[in-house]
Amino acid sequence: MSEPLFGKIALIGIGLIGGSIALEARKRGLAKHIVAATRSAETAALANKLKLADHCGTDLAEACRDADLVIVCTPVGACGPATKAIASALKPGCIVSDVGSVKQTVIADMAPHIPEGVHFVPAHPVAGTENSGPEAALLDLFQGRWCILTPLPDSDADAVAKLEAFWKGLGSQVERIDAKDHDRILAITSHLPHLIAYTIVGTADDLGGHLNSEVLKFAAGGFRDFTRIAASDPTMWRDVFMNNREAVLEVLQRFQEDLFYLQRAIRWGEGDKLFDLFTRTREIRRALIHLHQA
Amino acid sequence: MSEPLFGKIALIGIGLIGGSIALEARKRGLAKHIVAATRSAETAALANKLKLADHCGTDLAEACRDADLVIVCTPVGACGPATKAIASALKPGCIVSDVGSVKQTVIADMAPHIPEGVHFVPAHPVAGTENSGPEAALLDLFQGRWCILTPLPDSDADAVAKLEAFWKGLGSQVERIDAKDHDRILAITSHLPHLIAYTIVGTADDLGGHLNSEVLKFAAGGFRDFTRIAASDPTMWRDVFMNNREAVLEVLQRFQEDLFYLQRAIRWGEGDKLFDLFTRTREIRRALIHLHQA
Ligand SMILES: NC(=O)c1ccc[n+]([C@@H]2O[C@H](COP(=O)([O-])OP(=O)(O)OC[C@H]3O[C@@H](n4cnc5c(N)ncnc54)[C@H](OP(=O)(O)O)[C@@H]3O)[C@@H](O)[C@H]2O)c1
Ligand SMILES: NC(=O)c1ccc[n+]([C@@H]2O[C@H](COP(=O)([O-])OP(=O)(O)OC[C@H]3O[C@@H](n4cnc5c(N)ncnc54)[C@H](OP(=O)(O)O)[C@@H]3O)[C@@H](O)[C@H]2O)c1
Repeated sequence: MSEPLFGKIALIGIGLIGGSIALEARKRGLAKHIVAATRSAETAALANKLKLADHCGTDLAEACRDADLVIVCTPVGACGPATKAIASALKPGCIVSDVGSVKQTVIADMAPHIPEGVHFVPAHPVAGTENSGPEAALLDLFQGRWCILTPLPDSDADAVAKLEAFWKGLGSQVERIDAKDHDRILAITSHLPHLIAYTIVGTADDLGGHLNSEVLKFAAGGFRDFTRIAASDPTMWRDVFMNNREAVLEVLQRFQEDLFYLQRAIRWGEGDKLFDLFTRTREIRRALIHLHQA
Repeated sequence: MSEPLFGKIALIGIGLIGGSIALEARKRGLAKHIVAATRSAETAALANKLKLADHCGTDLAEACRDADLVIVCTPVGACGPATKAIASALKPGCIVSDVGSVKQTVIADMAPHIPEGVHFVPAHPVAGTENSGPEAALLDLFQGRWCILTPLPDSDADAVAKLEAFWKGLGSQVERIDAKDHDRILAITSHLPHLIAYTIVGTADDLGGHLNSEVLKFAAGGFRDFTRIAASDPTMWRDVFMNNREAVLEVLQRFQEDLFYLQRAIRWGEGDKLFDLFTRTREIRRALIHLHQA
């Protein structure tokens, strides 16, 4: 068997994403050692019990000592502080990356703490479930899904190539795009759908009185899917909305306009307008299936 | 084996729902004969090729002759005209029902055409997929799902009981509720989620320029689910919105208010408000799982 891509990998945060990276990297033999560190002793104990990494502790800096690749897998809002905490332990030539669902603010938060001689290459695997914590970690989570790299203009080319090889090794397809484009694309494909799902489940819950239990009881196809999405981790998603504010507000504005258009069509009995949109969206689904992303 | 519940069943419309009723009723031995009729010769031919009913034709009235149970399985907007077309062929004592996703307007459209001595019992199986047409018909579609009966004050008690037995025979749980409550509950659990999904997929598609193909390519969890919902049949859903206007506009208004609240929280950086809602919606998902409807 060929030499692993990395000697030692350190994962900072070991929930759904960090834990899945650990499982998959071990299975695919991408590193000799895989260590992790997390904030709480409880999560560390659970990660150790589940044998996600070789070892998981609570000293973030200690975990990064001698690491060739460090991936920060915390909620977006914790990426800056976590990087600050590990900075002094990073060895020259080490690659530091992350998995945050927002890229511009995470880059702004992490970059200032990266020492000279350490390579920073931001990334975002577009894969996940609504579950969180070490117990949510899964093999095959990244299989066939995209991982977006958003290198900085001065990112080291070899480091970018090596991180790309790593994500391909985990089963992903890799694409490099601009951090700003990333944030705009994800605002519409992921952040807005989550915001909408959270909203509608809340609205349904507020329809108090005798309807409330019936609403849950007869949860049909549509609503059921929304409750699943709206069960996603509150901390992660608060951080996403606080950190991708501009792009989310912009697509939200467009969405509101479009929804008012349909609202008006319903009010005035203009069925054709609905029919035309519904026909168009059906085609989009077919396009997605064609792209194997459905 | 005991005598089947019905001698002859006639299904008017043989797509996802009509076709699934035919398959399941035959498998479970609920009728001696199951015939169907639909508008177009193409759909009839497909239904015959798939052997959904014993026979499918295009003469709606002819199919209903001597039937003990007739279920109108067309889009909501076609229920009235279809009932008018079959009225003269209905025998005394026959039960007429439907499967429409809206109940008040369907009742208003169908009831005037029901002859003296024929029993009208409206129903709505809360089960489905985003596919339509005869090829979408499935066994086990109704298994464990609710079927809501919305009998009229003067509905014949024996006829209601017999229809209830039929839906239980198809695997459903049955509940009787008021048509008005039905329409309000479904507006939030099914109609609004569909409207939102259609809207957001349209909004994403309109984000033209170079982002468009990327939007599809990186369709993450949230958006993927929405495109599936937004692939549902345009005619069926146009009819639903045109026929449940009041209830949909009312919940849409509430939803808009709730969404503006979150929009404002994002704009002003009030993460706590988001976190609180996201925590509450997570509980609702748990309640649903507890009710075995997730
Ligand atoms: N979930 C998805 O679908 C998905 C998809 C793609 C990318 N992402 C991104 O991946 C990242 C992690 O998400 P996840 O779903 O894996 O979350 P998760 O399951 O909740 O795990 C988060 C991990 O980060 C740790 N952590 C939280 N705050 C910390 C802090 N202040 N310092 C150190 N560690 C901290 C947690 O440790 P403790 O339990 O010890 O506090 C836990 O180990 C987020 O940036 C998210 O945007 C998520
Ligand atoms: N889809 C769901 O998830 C779901 C769930 C519960 C209830 N429902 C309700 O079930 C009903 C049928 O939905 P579906 O999903 O089964 O639809 P579908 O698969 O599109 O099938 C509709 C059937 O009705 C026929 N039809 C349409 N217009 C007609 C007309 N004017 N006269 C006679 N036949 C006509 C169609 O025939 P041709 O092809 O020959 O035109 C087809 O056989 C709707 O009222 C819907 O609200 C749907």
